[in-house]
Amino acid sequence: MAAEIDAQPDVLSGLLGAQAVEIGRIGAELARRDHRFVLLAARGTSDHAALYAKYLLEVHLTMQVGLVSPSTSTVYGARPDLSGVLQIAVSQSGGSPDLLDSLVVARDCGATTVAVTNNVHSELARAAEFVVDVAAGPELAVAATKSYTAQLLALYLLVSSIGRSSLSPSDAAGLGAAAHATLQERSAVAAVAARYRFATRLITTARGFSYATAREGALKLMETSYIGAQAFSGADLLHGPMAMISGETPVIAITTPGRGGAAMAPVVAALRERHADLVLVCGQGDAVDPPQSGVLPVHTDSIREELHPILDILPLQRLAHGLSLERGENPDAPRGLRKVTETW
Amino acid sequence: MAAEIDAQPDVLSGLLGAQAVEIGRIGAELARRDHRFVLLAARGTSDHAALYAKYLLEVHLTMQVGLVSPSTSTVYGARPDLSGVLQIAVSQSGGSPDLLDSLVVARDCGATTVAVTNNVHSELARAAEFVVDVAAGPELAVAATKSYTAQLLALYLLVSSIGRSSLSPSDAAGLGAAAHATLQERSAVAAVAARYRFATRLITTARGFSYATAREGALKLMETSYIGAQAFSGADLLHGPMAMISGETPVIAITTPGRGGAAMAPVVAALRERHADLVLVCGQGDAVDPPQSGVLPVHTDSIREELHPILDILPLQRLAHGLSLERGENPDAPRGLRKVTETW
Repeated sequence: MAAEIDAQPDVLSGLLGAQAVEIGRIGAELARRDHRFVLLAARGTSDHAALYAKYLLEVHLTMQVGLVSPSTSTVYGARPDLSGVLQIAVSQSGGSPDLLDSLVVARDCGATTVAVTNNVHSELARAAEFVVDVAAGPELAVAATKSYTAQLLALYLLVSSIGRSSLSPSDAAGLGAAAHATLQERSAVAAVAARYRFATRLITTARGFSYATAREGALKLMETSYIGAQAFSGADLLHGPMAMISGETPVIAITTPGRGGAAMAPVVAALRERHADLVLVCGQGDAVDPPQSGVLPVHTDSIREELHPILDILPLQRLAHGLSLERGENPDAPRGLRKVTETW
Repeated sequence: MAAEIDAQPDVLSGLLGAQAVEIGRIGAELARRDHRFVLLAARGTSDHAALYAKYLLEVHLTMQVGLVSPSTSTVYGARPDLSGVLQIAVSQSGGSPDLLDSLVVARDCGATTVAVTNNVHSELARAAEFVVDVAAGPELAVAATKSYTAQLLALYLLVSSIGRSSLSPSDAAGLGAAAHATLQERSAVAAVAARYRFATRLITTARGFSYATAREGALKLMETSYIGAQAFSGADLLHGPMAMISGETPVIAITTPGRGGAAMAPVVAALRERHADLVLVCGQGDAVDPPQSGVLPVHTDSIREELHPILDILPLQRLAHGLSLERGENPDAPRGLRKVTETW
């Protein structure tokens, strides 16, 4: 897991080479078909990449987007008319039967189908009309890291090449260097890992594009450290769950610069009022009002907000890994999990 | 809160009278317009009612459905073309500014707009083209209970009257009596409340229509008992979070009879394998394989699966209330919350 976390700058830079051209070609073909509605289907970590894509598509292509509830077709047998619909399945392994079923049904029902995967030889890839190879290389750790950030970047490249938006593939050029710099911030992560050595629960929260980071960060912590990590959109946190926050509750809020980070201001204020034990994932060099219990800096300087989720997950991956070691667990072999989860 | 929990059989029976006719009229008008895509917008408890409606619409009207991420319009200013789209806002109070904004934008962008609310005099209701009154009566407790089950039933009545499905309003006829019988099962709930007196975290899980129940049950527990309750679809639980389950982890699985409950079998097996402290929300009289630490019976006998979520949330509302009292908290005054949450 540690090696795969460290490989991410190279994976991102690699994806921006030859692979970006191929993804751009697929995006151009999708643009020609002019879909109005997009369905995203995924599970686990890939579901968070799908959530990221939902925001990109809604904000920048002003398309309507739905996240598929696979059971509506696999358990309840729904067969909708999907003509004119684009269905994108996101899966590191391409190996979960329910995702495959959902894609096959979608194609039968008239959807254009795309598989975004790290395994172009999977059944999922073979079943899809278009395949986006996220080209992260073999991923051995059960807890996905490099395949996740590669999925995010591949989805960014895909959406930006569908056209009609201000997104540009070239905006991602500095991403490898920014990821490398962010991964150098080891001492900040180590301090937070030490602090939460004995925590049994933890909240992650964000708004906008980085809401995906809150969800994915919580999943990494659950998978490797067995901590009861819960993710909330900042707005949803205010609608009820805020009641359970006290001085005993670790909260990691993602507030990297941009509109999403700015929208977190009232949430952070409410968390301070409830005396939460607050850690901020913020821009490197951001002025942060005290009090907080830790800062996880992200090198976002030259990177537009839409790409921040590729960076702000990095300290949380490292935290999940470090906290697992602190607790005497083995982050490379989470109990009860296998690399490919099969659900129906 | 206790009085509002107990009022639900009457609220449900009341809604099935005159109000059902008015909802049927709105459904018929929506059917005439023949939307292909539905957007659901909600926060907190109402978001779980929206999730229930998503399954109903996808399975029975085979429509494509998206849950709105309000920040895409309120924070990022997206202005999509929504002609031919039906946007349904669900809100007990009709009082959250971001939901109102999202609805106003949707109407400006060409959507047919419906507000499903317990406050027909709210700004949200005034901004919508159609208003579905869930008629739950004044709700004073911060933790919503009767307005939630009323929302579910109102959404069932609305979807079943949009036509083209096997759902019928008359299938809901026995719901008041079934709710009454389910609420009589006090001793089972009391035993689970006593058992989890000192639990700091808890998992809820379900598949299909009752996934909404897992989400809403977890929220009630967070709001009133400050327990770190996390909800997962059964399939998503297998994709990673299962690692954190041990003999120390209380898990409430909803397995009432039907396809969703049947699809939970491999999840329950995995939970038993990990020695989870398992409580089942199941049909009254269901044969349950041991071991489990408790059973919360639901009187689903004469009620079709699509309506179970209106019943299977009842023991979890009672559990949230009972656990709050066990812990010396005041379920009627959760710390840090107000009845109307305003988010932007």
